[in-house]
Formats: sequence, structure tokens, C-alpha cells
Amino acid sequence: MTAHRFSLRVYYEDTDLAGLVYYANYLKFIERARTEWVRAQGIDQVALKARGLAFAVRQLTADYLKPARFDDLLTVETTETARSPARLTLSQRVLRDETLLFSAEVTLVCVKDNGTPTRLPL
Amino acid sequence: MTAHRFSLRVYYEDTDLAGLVYYANYLKFIERARTEWVRAQGIDQVALKARGLAFAVRQLTADYLKPARFDDLLTVETTETARSPARLTLSQRVLRDETLLFSAEVTLVCVKDNGTPTRLPL
Amino acid sequence: MTAHRFSLRVYYEDTDLAGLVYYANYLKFIERARTEWVRAQGIDQVALKARGLAFAVRQLTADYLKPARFDDLLTVETTETARSPARLTLSQRVLRDETLLFSAEVTLVCVKDNGTPTRLPL
Amino acid sequence: MTAHRFSLRVYYEDTDLAGLVYYANYLKFIERARTEWVRAQGIDQVALKARGLAFAVRQLTADYLKPARFDDLLTVETTETARSPARLTLSQRVLRDETLLFSAEVTLVCVKDNGTPTRLPL
Repeated sequence: MTAHRFSLRVYYEDTDLAGLVYYANYLKFIERARTEWVRAQGIDQVALKARGLAFAVRQLTADYLKPARFDDLLTVETTETARSPARLTLSQRVLRDETLLFSAEVTLVCVKDNGTPTRLPL
Repeated sequence: MTAHRFSLRVYYEDTDLAGLVYYANYLKFIERARTEWVRAQGIDQVALKARGLAFAVRQLTADYLKPARFDDLLTVETTETARSPARLTLSQRVLRDETLLFSAEVTLVCVKDNGTPTRLPL
Repeated sequence: MTAHRFSLRVYYEDTDLAGLVYYANYLKFIERARTEWVRAQGIDQVALKARGLAFAVRQLTADYLKPARFDDLLTVETTETARSPARLTLSQRVLRDETLLFSAEVTLVCVKDNGTPTRLPL
Repeated sequence: MTAHRFSLRVYYEDTDLAGLVYYANYLKFIERARTEWVRAQGIDQVALKARGLAFAVRQLTADYLKPARFDDLLTVETTETARSPARLTLSQRVLRDETLLFSAEVTLVCVKDNGTPTRLPL
């Protein structure tokens, strides 16, 4: 299966004192990519929200392999690795050209406005 | 009138590549201070939100005088400078000890869930 | 003079409890646009940083006119409005289609690693 | 061994459209707590940085159990679970009163300015 690909640029807001991308910001990068992955599945998250539904991250494992830096042009690759009616697992990788910088496995669920889990709208 | 005082520590998340606090983050600092200022006025923002009301910034002027750095312990001073039924203007200053680093004037309004402006709940 | 145009998508990270873009994040949006504006002037900020130079915001005035929302596709227009050897003033506007949401005037200076102001590298 | 405890308030900046704390921001919360934990070990991170050393996260596993909300007063508990000359593993938990909201295991290394790993300064 081909991975979904999403590109982004590293800006000042993403860096920290160490001159590298701040560790929490990789989670922003892969969430942007998931938003586009969801859109590519034909799902409108705005309409979903209007129905009181939203995706929520339940579990995350992440490996920080090499640092990304200011002005880097990065690619996020997103691949579905498992799915049940209630849970979706994605493998997401952040690369600069061919170099793997960050790798994560993210388990998503769907929740109603009141926080109750519900079936995935996929 | 005595200014309301709020203290905060600068963490890694607040800094950028330049080794200083990223310019947008001063707006986070003064918003934290406004939250505590609002609480000190006896207003419960959670209850306000439940009634469909929220404060919104309408206008902002900011002077960046000296940089704040990682691990600095900062104070935000908040003073009300003008008020009408619809608008509230606060003067907010960020200091490290006696040194003024950042100064802003912030005009706030109150908006309903649908975005319509309404009277300030103060 | 034609404005420099930069496009961006609003993601979850940009929104807050009110369901709108958090007020400090417009400063991130216009900083991304300034980075691309600087690049379009033929300036390499990475090389600049290696020489110990960086741009810093000295002054900012901002008007929040209408809220941006999750999933909006926004355009940032950047226009130079004044320049001296030491200071540069940009007018920056954030629009959704033809609707003006946010407008700012930003004064930039150039600083050395030790914080001393220096001539703009433009 | 007693856990190190650190308290924080949830502000608007931490929330998203869903009305809850944005998932990446828990990483900011636990990083603030680690900064204070490091300080409690008698280590001055500013001095460390001046010597060209910094902590970096190498690996992270996180469980999102229950959502934190605007205005919550949270506690981060930090406990050391493993240590070698090169790696430190911390268990970090975010609680609202007695309710566990978020749990993570974080592996840290120490890196020089050039990115080379080095012995932990602990």
C-alpha cells in the first residue's frame, strides 16, 4: 500500500533554544498529515464535528531519530496499519529527503461530544 | 490602581532558534495573566462559556523591548485602562525583576457563540 | 506594489476552545509568510543565522476583524510599507477568499547574536 | 520512591476546537515538569547549555486516558524508572485531583551542540 504523503516547511515557531524542532511539534506535523489523510479518505471533519464527532488519539509511540531544523522541507508519510470498528492505527514517518527523522504509531478512536467512544466514521 | 501580578517560568516550548522567547508566545503569557485577572474579578470563564459567552481580543499593540530567555522567571502586570459596556482595554507588561521586556495594550470584547458581540459580563 | 501572497491551512493545533483560531496563532501565520517573503527577497535566513544575524519584531499592531476557523484555507498578504537602514515595516493581512480577517503592521529590526541591533541585510 | 510533583493550570492556548487539551500539549506539560525535576536534581540547564549540552527525547510512549479541559488544575508526577550512563527513563503521569488523565514513558539522552550523544550529566 502506498503511503499518503504531506509536505511542510519548518518555521521559527517550530524550533526551540536547541536550534532544532521542539519535540512536541512533531505531533503537530503528523496531525496536519492525518487531517489531510482523513480528507483523502473522503471524510469532511467539519461536517463530522457538526454531528458531534471527532477523532481522538488514544495511544502514541514515537521515536526521535534525527533532528529536523529551521527551514527544512519535510515529508510526512502516513500508512494505515490496523483497523477495527472502534480503532484505527496509523504508522507515520517524518522524512527530510530520504532521511528518516521521526517515526510514530498512533492509535485513534472516534468520540462523541460528551466523550463517549463510538464507531469510526470510516 | 495596583496592577494585578502573575508569575510564570519560561520553558523550552517558549523559546525558538534564536535562543529567546518566540514573539507569539508573549501573547500566550499575557493571556494566562488575563485569565487570572478575570478570575480575580470574580468571573468564572467556564460558567461563562457554558452560557455561550467568551472574551475575544479585538485589537492589540505590542512593543518588544528586551528579550526573555529560557528559564527566566517573569511577571505579567495587568491594569485596566478603559471600559465601556462593550469594550475593555488592558495594559499588560512583562517584566524580569525590574526590567521591562514587553508591553502591550489589549482591547477585549465579549462575543456570543455565534460571534455576535454582546455586553461585557463585568 | 503587488503584495506577496502565502497560503496556509488551519489545523486543530491552531484552534482553541472557542472553536476559532487562537489569537496568538495569527502571529505564527504572518511569521511563516514573512519567512517566505524574506526568501523571495533572495535572503537565506539559515546563512544569516550562521553569520549570527536574525530578524526580530520590535513593534506590532494587530486588528482581529473576523475569526478564522478549523480547516479554513487562508492567504497572508505581505507588503513592505517603510524601510530605513535599521528598520523595516510590513503590512500583513490574513484573508479567507476575499474576506479580511486579520490585519497587522509589523516593525522588524536585525539583531546580532548578542542582541545588539545592526543594519538590515536587505 | 516518591514522585516529583509539578502543578499547572490549563489555559486557552492549551485547548483546541474539541474543547479539550490538544494532544501535543501534554508533551509541553511533561516537559515543564521534567525541567523542574532536573532543577530538583541540582542541575542548571542554562549552565549545561552554555557548555554545549542539552537533554533530548529519544523515545516516547503515551496513553491518553481521559481529557483535560480549560481551567483544570493539573499535577504532573515524574518518577525515574531506569538509568544508564547514556540514557534516562522517566515515567510521567498527568492527574486532575486523583484522576489519571495521561501517562507517558520518556527516554532521554544528552547531546552535544553538534548532535553527538554524550554521557548524562547526572
